[in-house]
Amino acid sequence: MTDQLINDRDIDFLLYELLDTEQLLSRERYQEHSREVFNATLDTARTIATKYFANHNAKGDANEPRFDGERVHMIEETQAAWDAFAEAGFLAAHADFDEGGLQMPEIILRSAMAYISAANVSSSGYPFLTIGAANLIRTFGSEEQKALYLPPMQDGRFAGTMALTEPGQGSALADITTTARPQADGSYRLYGQKMFISGGDQSLTENIVHMVLAKIEGAPAGAKGISLFICPKVLVNADGSLGARNDVALAGLLHKMGYRNTTSTVLSFGEQEGAQAWLVGEPHKGLGYMFQMMNEARIGVGMGAAILGYQGYNHSLDYARNRPQGRLPSNRDPSSKQVPIIQHADVRRMLLAQKAYCEGSLALCFYASALYEDSHTAPTAEEREQAFALLDLLTPMVKSFPSRYGLKANELAIQVLGGSGYTREYPLEQYYRDNRLNPIHEGTEAIHGLDLLGRKVPMAQMAAYRLFTETAHRDLESARAHPELAPLADAVAEGLTLLNETTATLLSRLAADPDRTLANATVYLDMFGRVLVAWIWIKQALVATGGLANSPADSDDAHFYQGKLQAARYFINWELPEIKPQAELLQRFAPEPFEMQDAWF
Amino acid sequence: MTDQLINDRDIDFLLYELLDTEQLLSRERYQEHSREVFNATLDTARTIATKYFANHNAKGDANEPRFDGERVHMIEETQAAWDAFAEAGFLAAHADFDEGGLQMPEIILRSAMAYISAANVSSSGYPFLTIGAANLIRTFGSEEQKALYLPPMQDGRFAGTMALTEPGQGSALADITTTARPQADGSYRLYGQKMFISGGDQSLTENIVHMVLAKIEGAPAGAKGISLFICPKVLVNADGSLGARNDVALAGLLHKMGYRNTTSTVLSFGEQEGAQAWLVGEPHKGLGYMFQMMNEARIGVGMGAAILGYQGYNHSLDYARNRPQGRLPSNRDPSSKQVPIIQHADVRRMLLAQKAYCEGSLALCFYASALYEDSHTAPTAEEREQAFALLDLLTPMVKSFPSRYGLKANELAIQVLGGSGYTREYPLEQYYRDNRLNPIHEGTEAIHGLDLLGRKVPMAQMAAYRLFTETAHRDLESARAHPELAPLADAVAEGLTLLNETTATLLSRLAADPDRTLANATVYLDMFGRVLVAWIWIKQALVATGGLANSPADSDDAHFYQGKLQAARYFINWELPEIKPQAELLQRFAPEPFEMQDAWF
Repeated sequence: MTDQLINDRDIDFLLYELLDTEQLLSRERYQEHSREVFNATLDTARTIATKYFANHNAKGDANEPRFDGERVHMIEETQAAWDAFAEAGFLAAHADFDEGGLQMPEIILRSAMAYISAANVSSSGYPFLTIGAANLIRTFGSEEQKALYLPPMQDGRFAGTMALTEPGQGSALADITTTARPQADGSYRLYGQKMFISGGDQSLTENIVHMVLAKIEGAPAGAKGISLFICPKVLVNADGSLGARNDVALAGLLHKMGYRNTTSTVLSFGEQEGAQAWLVGEPHKGLGYMFQMMNEARIGVGMGAAILGYQGYNHSLDYARNRPQGRLPSNRDPSSKQVPIIQHADVRRMLLAQKAYCEGSLALCFYASALYEDSHTAPTAEEREQAFALLDLLTPMVKSFPSRYGLKANELAIQVLGGSGYTREYPLEQYYRDNRLNPIHEGTEAIHGLDLLGRKVPMAQMAAYRLFTETAHRDLESARAHPELAPLADAVAEGLTLLNETTATLLSRLAADPDRTLANATVYLDMFGRVLVAWIWIKQALVATGGLANSPADSDDAHFYQGKLQAARYFINWELPEIKPQAELLQRFAPEPFEMQDAWF
Repeated sequence: MTDQLINDRDIDFLLYELLDTEQLLSRERYQEHSREVFNATLDTARTIATKYFANHNAKGDANEPRFDGERVHMIEETQAAWDAFAEAGFLAAHADFDEGGLQMPEIILRSAMAYISAANVSSSGYPFLTIGAANLIRTFGSEEQKALYLPPMQDGRFAGTMALTEPGQGSALADITTTARPQADGSYRLYGQKMFISGGDQSLTENIVHMVLAKIEGAPAGAKGISLFICPKVLVNADGSLGARNDVALAGLLHKMGYRNTTSTVLSFGEQEGAQAWLVGEPHKGLGYMFQMMNEARIGVGMGAAILGYQGYNHSLDYARNRPQGRLPSNRDPSSKQVPIIQHADVRRMLLAQKAYCEGSLALCFYASALYEDSHTAPTAEEREQAFALLDLLTPMVKSFPSRYGLKANELAIQVLGGSGYTREYPLEQYYRDNRLNPIHEGTEAIHGLDLLGRKVPMAQMAAYRLFTETAHRDLESARAHPELAPLADAVAEGLTLLNETTATLLSRLAADPDRTLANATVYLDMFGRVLVAWIWIKQALVATGGLANSPADSDDAHFYQGKLQAARYFINWELPEIKPQAELLQRFAPEPFEMQDAWF
């Protein structure tokens, strides 16, 4: 079994060949950095991942956190991992120097996180959520709030959570019932229950800062009445010292199929005197603020799903190279030597599909991180706005495609190992269980489908959508210049045309009949995702073609680029064509599910 | 949460409307039975399933069997379940009256088993394997072997296993190395190790009869040198009393992701003086004999996978009906009441897909059981031969389709529940973990694809394949007579044509280039499975159309038949069209996986 985390060569390819990460150094914010600093950051992440996270991935799964009615007990390795992550400065990595941070670009931080996730996705939940919560305070909090909470969240004394979901409403955030009662001193008291709150309690930090959505008494109904609050587990005095315990209680832990070392909690706010909380920003604008954290978390979910898929790919590839079994169909001599199973075409199919799904997903997430970076630090306002619009449009697929296909990759990885893959003696089944969470949290597939087709595509006269197709077509033009890429580029162009037609047909009825038009939005989400990742593979193939021309035959680099090209061919020739029946379904507003009656089930 | 096992109305539909199970009563073997006897048998199965199997499905998962180095420890409920199953006579249900059996038709026994599997698939493994092992002895064993082993295997004192796989060869049975050394008294001594042997040890029975594949010293290489042996855990004296412990040792238990209450074992034969064993039938013909048990087991795997999918469907349907959340897209009033999630189109899609996969799979398995019955008891030799040929052809799909789509159904069931579905507080995640085994054991998808395209389709100048298409076309003709079914029948006919073309193209190169022709056999298996199940849905739709005409409007029956029709529409309009890109890939011998090089990964 390989102990490899991701594939360093691929990370290097993504950062410096597919994306021009080096040009970030010309931006003012990063002028004190260098490629060496970036690489040293990744080296540190890799070391921490290997030493402090990989060591207890299986152990944390077998010994999940327990709640004894008073406190949560966790295996001690999780604490060491948290401490190492914090001590290396990663909790503050992308904060500015003058805020005590490392002023690191988003994409470098994401790459660092990729190593951590590869080693142990569930222990990585605590720091990742904390980074997201701190970003929220940094962007929307008052100076006082920033001064009070950011330093301990950056040095690892406090963790953070996002507390949105409630037992009664699940995905329907507009219906949350947690209430905020204004107090004379300008603070609030919260009353209500939150569910599925990751990291909502743990034994790692002296305090936990919950970013809570609630409705101020008398607020408008629905999403327009939601406000955002800071509600710490332990009250914090003005000097930063800890005060009394706040009225936030752990009602219980949920027991998940996977991702077990991340606690999933039910939290009760205000069972006694009310949980003290402080409004972030303006009243009733909480959902908009929270979307910042959710959108970051969504890239994070996509990345985690891609990485879990990638780890399964690495392990099953290693197994397939070393496990002899059977012979090729043409060999009828039973006394001949068995071949390594990687020589069986169906095993190669399963490995190539994993490679195409996971490297495609990872490249998509890196691309999204670069857009995030550009939306904040690109030189011109126009570039920043375009990056923001494009990222906003693509976020549903950035979250959903890796979640669906990373899981599918893990399913294939188990299949490569056969019976062994099904046992807990190998890590594949844990990846599969861990990854099953990803199509659910941070917005189910259904939610993202509705968001994409109902809102993001039509928004601003489809400006972002057009930006996407124009961007893709530029790459397709470049690809057509290479004879061996031309048929692939043509296939993706055809896919884009089909997506355009389908989109136009759907949008023509959206206003008149939203229920029927949006009925198959999940299919649209998958179709868009396939086209998007096909384009991402064209981008990778373009770089690989150039790289191949400059690599000695039979060199490691030549093989690496050949692999990229073959994966691009696989994805575009095997996976993309499934959009044809999808487009057909969508364009005829296929009514079978919509018209199915409750009584008929 | 519903406690329903399967859906009685559907079982009734399958037995007496889709299949004419009642006409079995006219066959000599079943003349003493009646429909009441059949139904009473199913009632008994349902009662045992509910009382003795369902009670510990979750407990057996959370407390899997342990091996202390000497013996296996299991939760006591498993013993009660085994005893209840045996006492009800199910271990002998389909043996003849004069062999102490109930002389029950295969399909009634399978229906009974379906209830048991629905309640607890892993505890059902022990009796199901025992039935299969006993069938093997009954068919191929000597009179002496039958007299010695069948009575205790029928009354529950002995269990049975099938011991094929070895650590070194996995699916490649031709390469087994377990050796049988002839003894002076006509018996043999076995030496070797077997792996992934389900039920290979347990605490339920005083003895376990292992049906072992091994090679007699000096046997030909490969599959033609494999013989079948009876090798009991405890030696049995001529009078049936137990003798000394045989030289069969439990080397260890494997720890699975699911299916946990079925032990999966590594067994060592002959670590001391050699494990005493007795040849079944003739030397070197063991693989052929074992195929009987494997083919029965394959229908059983398909059935179990369908049933696990079905259980997930039932639970997620119940949840969707009772869980309010959100509103339809057309409703913008945030103060209006939330709707049950079954009203969301995407939830209905996920439920309808589950229904189409699982009811389609179950109908396929019932149809296969009817073929099995006919192959043994149909009135004429021609009917028996045709049933055998058709079942032999279809077995790869009967095993593989439910395994793939039952798992997919469970994935959707989790998604319907969202975060709750991911927790162990609900049964969905266990179904999903349990079901992940099914695409692996009793032949992986890859093995069945090769068997189908490389052997079963071309066999006897495609006689069985032609029989299948003729049989299907007869139903399509009937369906065309109904205006509302005609478009569905046309779509399936088009699918059959595409399958015919694809098959012809592939077979034209099979002899000349088997490696490349068989490279995409797993895709062919899935394509064939989709066409097959589309036809099974036409068969169900035909019955439903007739039933609907005779049911009062808005009656339960009318709703039931409407559901069948809608599921048929869904399957044929949503799932069948995916064969088009598959056919395109297959017909051009799509080379991407085949040409992928090891070094490029």
